[in-house]
Amino acid sequence: MPDSYAYLGPAGTFTQQALLMIPEVRDGEQVPMAGVPAVAAAVRSGETTYGLMPLENSVEGPVSVTTDELVVGEPLQIVREVFLPVSFVLAAREPLELDAIKTVVSHPHAHGQTRAWVQQHLPNAQTVVASSTAEAAVLVGNGEYDASISARIAADNNGLHILAEQVEDTTGAVTRFALLSLPGTPGEVTGNDRTSFVVHIRQEQPGALSGVLIELASRAINLTRIESRPWRERVGEYHFILECEGHVSDPRVGDALAALHRTCRDVRFLGSYPRGDRQNEQLPDDATDHAFVEAAQWLAGVRRDGASS
Amino acid sequence: MPDSYAYLGPAGTFTQQALLMIPEVRDGEQVPMAGVPAVAAAVRSGETTYGLMPLENSVEGPVSVTTDELVVGEPLQIVREVFLPVSFVLAAREPLELDAIKTVVSHPHAHGQTRAWVQQHLPNAQTVVASSTAEAAVLVGNGEYDASISARIAADNNGLHILAEQVEDTTGAVTRFALLSLPGTPGEVTGNDRTSFVVHIRQEQPGALSGVLIELASRAINLTRIESRPWRERVGEYHFILECEGHVSDPRVGDALAALHRTCRDVRFLGSYPRGDRQNEQLPDDATDHAFVEAAQWLAGVRRDGASS
Amino acid sequence: MPDSYAYLGPAGTFTQQALLMIPEVRDGEQVPMAGVPAVAAAVRSGETTYGLMPLENSVEGPVSVTTDELVVGEPLQIVREVFLPVSFVLAAREPLELDAIKTVVSHPHAHGQTRAWVQQHLPNAQTVVASSTAEAAVLVGNGEYDASISARIAADNNGLHILAEQVEDTTGAVTRFALLSLPGTPGEVTGNDRTSFVVHIRQEQPGALSGVLIELASRAINLTRIESRPWRERVGEYHFILECEGHVSDPRVGDALAALHRTCRDVRFLGSYPRGDRQNEQLPDDATDHAFVEAAQWLAGVRRDGASS
Amino acid sequence: MPDSYAYLGPAGTFTQQALLMIPEVRDGEQVPMAGVPAVAAAVRSGETTYGLMPLENSVEGPVSVTTDELVVGEPLQIVREVFLPVSFVLAAREPLELDAIKTVVSHPHAHGQTRAWVQQHLPNAQTVVASSTAEAAVLVGNGEYDASISARIAADNNGLHILAEQVEDTTGAVTRFALLSLPGTPGEVTGNDRTSFVVHIRQEQPGALSGVLIELASRAINLTRIESRPWRERVGEYHFILECEGHVSDPRVGDALAALHRTCRDVRFLGSYPRGDRQNEQLPDDATDHAFVEAAQWLAGVRRDGASS
Repeated sequence: MPDSYAYLGPAGTFTQQALLMIPEVRDGEQVPMAGVPAVAAAVRSGETTYGLMPLENSVEGPVSVTTDELVVGEPLQIVREVFLPVSFVLAAREPLELDAIKTVVSHPHAHGQTRAWVQQHLPNAQTVVASSTAEAAVLVGNGEYDASISARIAADNNGLHILAEQVEDTTGAVTRFALLSLPGTPGEVTGNDRTSFVVHIRQEQPGALSGVLIELASRAINLTRIESRPWRERVGEYHFILECEGHVSDPRVGDALAALHRTCRDVRFLGSYPRGDRQNEQLPDDATDHAFVEAAQWLAGVRRDGASS
Repeated sequence: MPDSYAYLGPAGTFTQQALLMIPEVRDGEQVPMAGVPAVAAAVRSGETTYGLMPLENSVEGPVSVTTDELVVGEPLQIVREVFLPVSFVLAAREPLELDAIKTVVSHPHAHGQTRAWVQQHLPNAQTVVASSTAEAAVLVGNGEYDASISARIAADNNGLHILAEQVEDTTGAVTRFALLSLPGTPGEVTGNDRTSFVVHIRQEQPGALSGVLIELASRAINLTRIESRPWRERVGEYHFILECEGHVSDPRVGDALAALHRTCRDVRFLGSYPRGDRQNEQLPDDATDHAFVEAAQWLAGVRRDGASS
Repeated sequence: MPDSYAYLGPAGTFTQQALLMIPEVRDGEQVPMAGVPAVAAAVRSGETTYGLMPLENSVEGPVSVTTDELVVGEPLQIVREVFLPVSFVLAAREPLELDAIKTVVSHPHAHGQTRAWVQQHLPNAQTVVASSTAEAAVLVGNGEYDASISARIAADNNGLHILAEQVEDTTGAVTRFALLSLPGTPGEVTGNDRTSFVVHIRQEQPGALSGVLIELASRAINLTRIESRPWRERVGEYHFILECEGHVSDPRVGDALAALHRTCRDVRFLGSYPRGDRQNEQLPDDATDHAFVEAAQWLAGVRRDGASS
Repeated sequence: MPDSYAYLGPAGTFTQQALLMIPEVRDGEQVPMAGVPAVAAAVRSGETTYGLMPLENSVEGPVSVTTDELVVGEPLQIVREVFLPVSFVLAAREPLELDAIKTVVSHPHAHGQTRAWVQQHLPNAQTVVASSTAEAAVLVGNGEYDASISARIAADNNGLHILAEQVEDTTGAVTRFALLSLPGTPGEVTGNDRTSFVVHIRQEQPGALSGVLIELASRAINLTRIESRPWRERVGEYHFILECEGHVSDPRVGDALAALHRTCRDVRFLGSYPRGDRQNEQLPDDATDHAFVEAAQWLAGVRRDGASS
């Protein structure tokens, strides 16, 4: 049976565009869902094998929804990350001159991110809102409005003509997506991995978080993200979502996670997976696998044979 | 001339509802703006005295926009924070039975947050999207749709009847707003203050961030928020938005900020202002104003008179 | 064959007195040596099973000699520590009135530590120096001088009469001795152990030593002694002699030593042995054996099964 | 009136030899004292202007006596340090062949440090002990013994002939001496200074000492010495004698000392004085005087004018 992939729908969202960057998806089934919680629920219930949702910097919706799904409720595991440059196209049913466009439909966020371009190039067009950029393209395909602003995939899905590309006011935005599954043995160590986890600090005490970071720094583990989230039920307690270089099977990362598990109120492992953006930093000599193995051997020798030169 | 307050509009948003929680606003002018950048621009240009924008956990839009305004561009200063419970009302032009509602209009995010309630209570209604919850109430006021889901203030602004309150699926959400001005002398120390600042780490090196947190922890300064943001222009460099207890005029906070200014690539002070949620922690003896003053006096004595018993 | 015990001689020193506090010594052979290096050499060559030498605060001679034996050369291992209150007796061949004493012989250090008492009680006596307090008692036993100042054991060895006890000017001094053997499996964990080791820091860099101490502190390991020693061959490099609570077989201590072995230029384990003075501190919950075992199990589970609630 | 200098006597000790390395001493009065406490007392009472005593690694006697004088009792201040290579000479009243020497007199420590040389070159000589190496030379000058082992100065003082130099078994030993005065304004900053101080930790708690070292490391202050000393009156509390690069008038050192004064039970400043051995490390950019001044100016600006770019 082929794998199935729930994603933040409807069809034609940036999330679907990101999904299609995963080669295996072409042999699987794509299942659009109405919201991040629905994607999470589909994976948890076994309805789909995987779920794709935006993690950071998305224009499709607030990523705190994703964070909350990862932090609370039944565990899910990140098995892959995908980076997608965020870029909008202006599209219509037919090739059109820009001044022939009277109505432009899109999601409010996309309108916000293309406002300057639209004011300059379509000064007389009326803006109309849709519930998603994907739906905007559908509405144009149906002939309800003249042009849509959406991901390229939505224009393609609806057979629209691309009138202009990169119509966003600020270029360079990238959204990071997480592919989630039920918990399972983490994937192979690739040497360029990332590990995500959640730490629940014992108290809002000075030094508690610096203690967490020292456990990472003393093992030469680079942080790539940190975000505090208040702990709903207990005033003054915090969750921290942390992401770092390395794989839970790397000695230094495992050693650090075990130390955090021992000293923090709670640690939730969210996954170790190949890094999708760039190379991890070069490891210093005292943080290589070899250094950890050698130290463990030395300790075993000392415990068995005592002092050595 | 009265003070003027730009806010994330249109009229009837949760941001306006938060604005009205500030007593002085009633004597001032309220100026709705189309987007967070426009609010920031109004304050920077002097068009308005203040600007209110959501900082955290908003349902009105992505707060990363606010963060980015604070982190880059011309400096703005937080002079006040406002916490607003996020709660939606269902409203119509006339008192209606729920099963008489055929169309419900709202912003896509608000639809997302009330989906279960709507499915249960309005199973046959069609959902329609508007560019904001405020506009949704306007459209209902205009007779275009039967009912809107919005902040209470939008319903009130448009003379609607409240059909149901607290229609959100999850209760307890709170949005935190920041009132911004041009830079100026921070307000008085109240003893229950918060300080916000941005730190730009020299390198993505292990220990750089833990070093920052140790400067805070060693002065018994509680962190209340931390968030990493990649530094757009330089790969592998990060900004961290940090918020802590205390006021820049408190010795311990000033001392810590000066240390960070010295050791980090850059520190941007964002403001010290009364805390809007709850009391700061009790200070330990070695972090009181007295302890800092006493230590400075001791040092001056040693530099002048040498060793003492 | 009975165990043999080299000690810092000659017979009658405080070191011999300390040696006799070890019950097993009564069934063994006692071998006085002329100097700490000779004691070390006897153990290293197998001439004796054990060697006893002063570690700290001795009045018999400079303890840095002991430290240097432990830090460089062929490894030795501390298997026991003995604390001995340092107290001197005034002794003579016959019961004498104090004013009949014309000559008082002792080691220069012992003269220094009893100067006020002697000036008060023996104002007319001439002080004579011997190469050790033990030899002083021998000389009095031989009739060369009237009285000696020495350890009680030296008076007893030579059949002298004790004329006065506790003639030291300052009471409360204690010397700590180490019983050394060739390296071997450390003794059993008793729950009240001490561990001694030497750390060679990579460079005289700020933070190198604080990094060492953080590895201990983050595992709730109390330091009981620290001493820096310059590294003879390399300017600007240091050895640190460290002693802490706990046993190398305790998870937290072993874990810390392995981390130091990984991050420092060199770590030399000197021994884990029952603490001779007082009880170790109560362990916090996150540093118990159970906490370490539980963290290791959690990590194994995560590596095998992935995320868990 | 010329300055007077108490020193650890008698005349002819290594301490006197070290004293003569201070140019100003030639115009002053030299006052030998019988013990380190007597030197300290002479300075405290005003009997002499200065006092010289060995601090580290001496062969003349236990330096813990010096440490204890600095740590407890009325404050004294280190105003200068002197390094003296420790080297012994064999001397006699007349030029002699070595095999004509029947008796060799010295302090027991000096005998210990020249044992191998004496066994090789004077196999038939009898060793005799004196209360100091200085006295040994006096005794040879008086004709009581054939040869003495002492500092060169003692041989010179007594008009002896040097028969052999560097007769110590291990070369390279150096003793460090401290010149003490009553407390007073520390000397000028030279750019190559050392600062000595004593820290009394609040409790024997894990992390207390690492906290101290972090205050130094975070300001890029190199430690040059650390030594723990138990606190006599309170079990489980410790003094730490610390020495670091820099001068109390350097911003980074003053800042660190003030922080320690605030967070530790007690800090005793012992002096800032020119370093006598080698150059301090190069300062990183974030620890220069300029960096501290600039940070203080920035803080003053923020407190006055608020946020700045």
